[in-house]
Amino acid sequence: MQIFQKSITLKPYPRGFHLVTKEILSQIPEISELQMGNLHVFIQHTSAGLSINENADPTVRNDFETFVNDLIPEDYPHFVHTYEGSDDMPAHVKSSLIGNQLNVPITRGKVDLGTWQGIYLCEFRNNGGARNLVLTAIGM
Amino acid sequence: MQIFQKSITLKPYPRGFHLVTKEILSQIPEISELQMGNLHVFIQHTSAGLSINENADPTVRNDFETFVNDLIPEDYPHFVHTYEGSDDMPAHVKSSLIGNQLNVPITRGKVDLGTWQGIYLCEFRNNGGARNLVLTAIGM
Amino acid sequence: MQIFQKSITLKPYPRGFHLVTKEILSQIPEISELQMGNLHVFIQHTSAGLSINENADPTVRNDFETFVNDLIPEDYPHFVHTYEGSDDMPAHVKSSLIGNQLNVPITRGKVDLGTWQGIYLCEFRNNGGARNLVLTAIGM
Repeated sequence: MQIFQKSITLKPYPRGFHLVTKEILSQIPEISELQMGNLHVFIQHTSAGLSINENADPTVRNDFETFVNDLIPEDYPHFVHTYEGSDDMPAHVKSSLIGNQLNVPITRGKVDLGTWQGIYLCEFRNNGGARNLVLTAIGM
Repeated sequence: MQIFQKSITLKPYPRGFHLVTKEILSQIPEISELQMGNLHVFIQHTSAGLSINENADPTVRNDFETFVNDLIPEDYPHFVHTYEGSDDMPAHVKSSLIGNQLNVPITRGKVDLGTWQGIYLCEFRNNGGARNLVLTAIGM
Repeated sequence: MQIFQKSITLKPYPRGFHLVTKEILSQIPEISELQMGNLHVFIQHTSAGLSINENADPTVRNDFETFVNDLIPEDYPHFVHTYEGSDDMPAHVKSSLIGNQLNVPITRGKVDLGTWQGIYLCEFRNNGGARNLVLTAIGM
């Protein structure tokens, strides 16, 4: 059994849903040494998220942003924690609903995503800046 | 430490929430060799999900289907990605909100689910077909 | 590689979102032996959840409770599974949307949470009682 861990920083992304599979995987090439295992991807922030969804048509990512903004609206009248702006508390709720971590199987040296799957960075702040991730691959 | 990995295919299920604990566990009997560890369950699709919820009363699964259809409605007017029908983009959103992977503890050779917990396949498409899962058990 | 597993019981919490990082970590001091790895936290119940979110301002936790009650309302007219009261089926839905498990990286003997991150117990029942968790740390 082997374990590899990397602390990485993604470049800043604008608010929205972004495909970051390649940006993440390029920073942990050691997974090529694992015949089977798991890659854990963790974001160290509470106003952004990680998810797995369609890797092809950009309209999917746009539709996510539109729908999630309607589901958790910035003008929700009962939010108290809005010190950093109207996107503050909605970003916290979105992070917990979408999730802020992933575990992806590794098979024969590669992440074993489905044909249409990619890793999304979900940036919920208007100016979230660079985001820190911790990548941990365990396997043999 | 040991690791076991299986690529399996679930039989096709109709749209809705389905209890698949036994169908999954029967395909990875090697977990009986592990005194402690984790079983990771990953679905290689972006229009279905996996969750853990009540394993007894089927009304829970029916209520899930009803509520989730209301929460993420097919007639939401701003979806653009509807090429495959009105269930297309809602299925993507449901997959990311419910989640598409699970990690379950293994204790003394069995998954350590609570008394009332079972694994759900959440089929969000009208005709999703057979779904591929990757199961990875790590432990000792 | 090493693995540590603990079955623990949290003290009863009232309905709402609660910061339980210290209560959990104090019961698995063995993570100090791991230079890198993951801590898996699993709740063996279907009417409570686990999440990671802001660890500082309690208004965040209050806003979560307010918003989530509006998103999954107790007076939703189509719920059938309400045998244990109006908080019964909403608690199941909240558990699957928020999630009932976490995986947190371990780095140099400590969980590698971001500065503002803490572990939330999300108690969705009016009288949920004590909740059982299974903690599994894997690493080296």
